Amino acid sequence: MSTYVVTGAAGFIGSHLTEALLGRGHRVIGVDNFSTGQERFLEAARRCDRFTLLEGDILDPGVLRQALAGADAVFHFAANADVRGGFAAPRVDLEQNTLATFQVLESMREAGVSRIVFASSSVALGEPEVFPTPEDCPIPAQTSLYGASKMAGEGLISAYCEGYGFEGYAFRFVSLLGPRYPHGHVFDFVKQLRADPSRLRILGDGTQRKSYLHVDDCVRAVLHIAEDVRPARPRSPIPDPRSPIPGSGSRFEVYHLGVPAYCLVRESAHWICDELGVSPRLEFGSGTRGWIGDSPFVFLDVTKAMKTGWAPQHSIEASVRETVRWLVGNPWIFERRT
Amino acid sequence: MSTYVVTGAAGFIGSHLTEALLGRGHRVIGVDNFSTGQERFLEAARRCDRFTLLEGDILDPGVLRQALAGADAVFHFAANADVRGGFAAPRVDLEQNTLATFQVLESMREAGVSRIVFASSSVALGEPEVFPTPEDCPIPAQTSLYGASKMAGEGLISAYCEGYGFEGYAFRFVSLLGPRYPHGHVFDFVKQLRADPSRLRILGDGTQRKSYLHVDDCVRAVLHIAEDVRPARPRSPIPDPRSPIPGSGSRFEVYHLGVPAYCLVRESAHWICDELGVSPRLEFGSGTRGWIGDSPFVFLDVTKAMKTGWAPQHSIEASVRETVRWLVGNPWIFERRT
Repeated sequence: MSTYVVTGAAGFIGSHLTEALLGRGHRVIGVDNFSTGQERFLEAARRCDRFTLLEGDILDPGVLRQALAGADAVFHFAANADVRGGFAAPRVDLEQNTLATFQVLESMREAGVSRIVFASSSVALGEPEVFPTPEDCPIPAQTSLYGASKMAGEGLISAYCEGYGFEGYAFRFVSLLGPRYPHGHVFDFVKQLRADPSRLRILGDGTQRKSYLHVDDCVRAVLHIAEDVRPARPRSPIPDPRSPIPGSGSRFEVYHLGVPAYCLVRESAHWICDELGVSPRLEFGSGTRGWIGDSPFVFLDVTKAMKTGWAPQHSIEASVRETVRWLVGNPWIFERRT
Repeated sequence: MSTYVVTGAAGFIGSHLTEALLGRGHRVIGVDNFSTGQERFLEAARRCDRFTLLEGDILDPGVLRQALAGADAVFHFAANADVRGGFAAPRVDLEQNTLATFQVLESMREAGVSRIVFASSSVALGEPEVFPTPEDCPIPAQTSLYGASKMAGEGLISAYCEGYGFEGYAFRFVSLLGPRYPHGHVFDFVKQLRADPSRLRILGDGTQRKSYLHVDDCVRAVLHIAEDVRPARPRSPIPDPRSPIPGSGSRFEVYHLGVPAYCLVRESAHWICDELGVSPRLEFGSGTRGWIGDSPFVFLDVTKAMKTGWAPQHSIEASVRETVRWLVGNPWIFERRT
């Protein structure tokens, strides 16, 4: 039994991850400030006596200090995840993602915890020119502040691996779907169609090509790689940063997570309408991007992750349809405060 | 005549850049907090009435607001440049580089200034696996907090280009040499040999392969590309970030700057000793890296920059020898406070 800190434990992915860790018999210290996390997402976790919730902000060193005492590793899944809103409030991604990740790393160093698993994003790849996009694709220009903050987080973690002997994993996810899905285009489409089933407005011309991963497949991959396989496991004692010891090889690994497929946004619109039993007039926008920072083609090369023995079990269509059913069964998600 | 803001105007590179801009007939607003900048480096600039100095910290929005009023572009050259010290004080690169770059960008947006030229670094490439290393090399794992902060700065700038229609240039420099050179291995070697010409301690085994660029060649390249050629010049009106207008093509360009050559650290030690007329016993360390975060092989592909018509004029050996002569003629640099 290990003790794991999960930041963003009340979030979409964090809450599923928390349940999976508890299901493996571990202790979980969940941290969440409930800025976007939901109490309801923790109902199952709260029934387990190996789960502890710390309500607080990870930018507060006191909260992290309390969470990290005795921990074996951190799953850093807290983040501002509103990619589209970045340019309207440019400080948010910097503070809640870049600075928060730094604070997590510094608190870990202080507490003597050196293993971190980081929720990065395909958004940090900007608009790639290689498809499917592998982990070692060319250095991207960022097209969103969210992407910039996630790549900045990866940079900090990899530097901590080099300088302080941390063991780090960054998972660049495509968009996730499944139960508790709280925002994104499926959310927007279902919300629109609940209000008016006769029309559906689609940002961009609907030809955007996107890949989606079911949250269960995502969590299985993260635990399989970062807990079972652990390719970045330290093979030597942690170096002393005060001594001029040369770098001792990377303990930082990046994995792309997605399905080996993509769909058109207009295809997903048809699945959503079919699942809802509605036949709206589709109103397309113009251009191949829905908004500034929207990547018109997301399709990751997930060979590296699949070589570890993991494989996704849900098709994109099945994930979209299950997500629609969950949204229909949980209409409160459209009314929540955040 | 344009008006340019130069952050870090009293620094090694910033002061040369300031003089070059004044030499082209421009107005220059120099900003420096003199944390590492030197009053003496500004002696020539201060004789020009088109130069204004604002003493203050770029983390202070008031200083930037004052500097940016009426400016046409910003050369953001202020930074903590102590790569080696990063792991002893991990907050420094975050604050003085990542956060300071964000503050510059936000102040520019507020002031309506949208062209930025950024001093990035080959250090942000970590330990590349391709040599000479081109701009579009694979996404690196960072090996220093300095490198992480420079790549984070590039990410912020490229996102501002996408979201706010900025025109951005990032120059990844190899280590620079020439007059006013204030730190680095040539500095350390000369300092050691001034104290004791009988022995020279070298970090690492001396086989590190490094590339160096003369500061004059660097400044010529920056001005040629970012002022004369301007390949990222806007071709369309600045988009309105409040509207769902699709991204309109990159206005962000990255250039590698260096010479198309490299030397061994032990070779440079011999040039330094020869220039000083000393024959010390060379005491090598072990390992192929001088310290954690030291990249054992730095050799950039500068084809992209050279295709614009620029070419470096100083060989590495000539730059090393000139730097030694400057250090010998300016011993105060070894005694300065910072």
